[in-house]
Amino acid sequence: MALAMSLGRRGLGRTWPNPAVGCVIVRDSRVVGRGWTQPGGRPHAETEALAQAGAAARGADVYVTLEPCSHHGKTPPCAQALIDAGVARVVIAASDPDPRVSGQGVDMLKAAGLVVEAGLMADLALQDNAGFFARVELDRPFVTLKLASSFDGRIATATGESQWITGPAARRWVHALRARHDAVMVGGGTARKDDPSLTVRGLGTSWQPARVVISRRLDLPLMSTLARTAKDVPVILSHGHDADATLVQTWQDIGAVLLPCAASGGQLDPADVLRQLAGHGLTRVFCEGGSALAASLIEADLVDELVGFTAGLAIGAEGLPSIGALGLSHLQDAPRFALAESRTIGGDSLHVWRRQMQ
Amino acid sequence: MALAMSLGRRGLGRTWPNPAVGCVIVRDSRVVGRGWTQPGGRPHAETEALAQAGAAARGADVYVTLEPCSHHGKTPPCAQALIDAGVARVVIAASDPDPRVSGQGVDMLKAAGLVVEAGLMADLALQDNAGFFARVELDRPFVTLKLASSFDGRIATATGESQWITGPAARRWVHALRARHDAVMVGGGTARKDDPSLTVRGLGTSWQPARVVISRRLDLPLMSTLARTAKDVPVILSHGHDADATLVQTWQDIGAVLLPCAASGGQLDPADVLRQLAGHGLTRVFCEGGSALAASLIEADLVDELVGFTAGLAIGAEGLPSIGALGLSHLQDAPRFALAESRTIGGDSLHVWRRQMQ
Repeated sequence: MALAMSLGRRGLGRTWPNPAVGCVIVRDSRVVGRGWTQPGGRPHAETEALAQAGAAARGADVYVTLEPCSHHGKTPPCAQALIDAGVARVVIAASDPDPRVSGQGVDMLKAAGLVVEAGLMADLALQDNAGFFARVELDRPFVTLKLASSFDGRIATATGESQWITGPAARRWVHALRARHDAVMVGGGTARKDDPSLTVRGLGTSWQPARVVISRRLDLPLMSTLARTAKDVPVILSHGHDADATLVQTWQDIGAVLLPCAASGGQLDPADVLRQLAGHGLTRVFCEGGSALAASLIEADLVDELVGFTAGLAIGAEGLPSIGALGLSHLQDAPRFALAESRTIGGDSLHVWRRQMQ
Repeated sequence: MALAMSLGRRGLGRTWPNPAVGCVIVRDSRVVGRGWTQPGGRPHAETEALAQAGAAARGADVYVTLEPCSHHGKTPPCAQALIDAGVARVVIAASDPDPRVSGQGVDMLKAAGLVVEAGLMADLALQDNAGFFARVELDRPFVTLKLASSFDGRIATATGESQWITGPAARRWVHALRARHDAVMVGGGTARKDDPSLTVRGLGTSWQPARVVISRRLDLPLMSTLARTAKDVPVILSHGHDADATLVQTWQDIGAVLLPCAASGGQLDPADVLRQLAGHGLTRVFCEGGSALAASLIEADLVDELVGFTAGLAIGAEGLPSIGALGLSHLQDAPRFALAESRTIGGDSLHVWRRQMQ
């Protein structure tokens, strides 16, 4: 199952709106088939593994990270394919939250006389597919918020200088994190100030996550890197219903995907922004700031994982804060996260925090 | 030598103004004597180890973390004691920076026909005795700056609430760090706002570091915990020459040690504050803030080690920053530190940074 998990992870960031599943087929203590969800979500992991196993699948044990599908969608149901291949036993990590599948894949396998076991390494499977689960159950993508700051929590000097606070190893790590998400997201201020490309670079990957910019009024530079490259790598703009119609049209012509969202109190409602992104199919979003967007996501309790890089320099109180105003007065009301990992990356300290389980 | 190092460390925080030295005597592959500098700095480690070894010291190997003293101070020279005991070989980690000793201890041993080797694990010995070296060579104590902040670098809410940001394991760690320093230091603002005791608690230690408060005008509450306990555990007040004479007298009557320091630009000069503390004998000072004192030490390049605790909560931009204004505009001018350690303490992330070697 651990092997199936690691195979499944290969698809992270590339299978949306589908989950990134891994599958291993074992016959007489030998691995005869390995598969993972292919880019775009098809073929499914089981199909890949069965194709590799061929006749060796007969009587074999199948390890799959998510419950095999039972419905006829764009592909025939995997549960049926497993039955047809004559496998003897299916071990499942997590059951599928999709109401079209949940429990039915298991039922179909059992009805055909297969031995079915479920729950092995379920925690890890839930974590790896947290994006798929969030989209199905919460109608929003899983949100990772990255903050790379100085020792004293600043992301730039008072004059806006931010390159570079962390070292090359941490920046490379960030590119790897981008590659494992469906989209990289920033606020309009960051897009205006930094003219970022938000692409994955230096890792030899053949795919790119989508780029999402949150800008109520669409007041983004039309000569920016994002605008120029919108036809090569998707650019998704979440904007207000009141954005200028000409700007909407211009950005559509440039090649961007426009997602109108509800506003509240003069700002885009972060919950609706995420709902629209889920509607577009995104399951895993990597937010890289700036401080206003970070604050609005944290305040609305929409951050699932915080990835912090702390660098060994002091910027001082005039610097830009990593998280904007939260309107907190009591410490007990502060949003809290649980530490999942703490380690050294190059010359910087990495700390990963997850939403506290309710 | 590793054993001698760990013995030496037992004295940290208790031997000032002397170094915390460790000594192990080995005869025929058996440890026959162990010693470390005793509280107050005497007896020396070698004296302790020789007393334990007795006649077994004859022909033995001696491992000592710092060059044995050669001068008649308050104790007879340790180099002479080693010669008198008839040891055969002395292995030294670091040579003594004290001009009364440097090289002379080694010379005395060699002149008496002993085999002397120096430099084994010297880096570690220099680090353990960085306080003693700083006092002798830089005329100031070694300064550790502790910052315990939220994920976004805040040490309190806008209303000043700061208890508790980090968890019990991190707070206990802080008490252990206090115990390994000669003194705990805070700014006047923190002393006024938090009414701290600055003592080591919950570790079963039999000694307490001194408490240092930096307050130019000595406008500190006379009914505070520090004032009430000044006769039990030393309180040192670094103040300006212009502090009110009545207040100076009052604090002296309370039992505090008063150290007048130079001011510049309306604030106490941090370099002179540390010089006066070194003059009082302190070799290792543990600074716990607040943000103004942290900023003034960092700005003056007087911080040797930064100990950061990051907690998994967000306070937001209205919160109090861990480090005050530094007047920086360019990132390349930001004070930088090198990461020495990064780990998990309870539910918090610990990261330790050291001054970059010049």
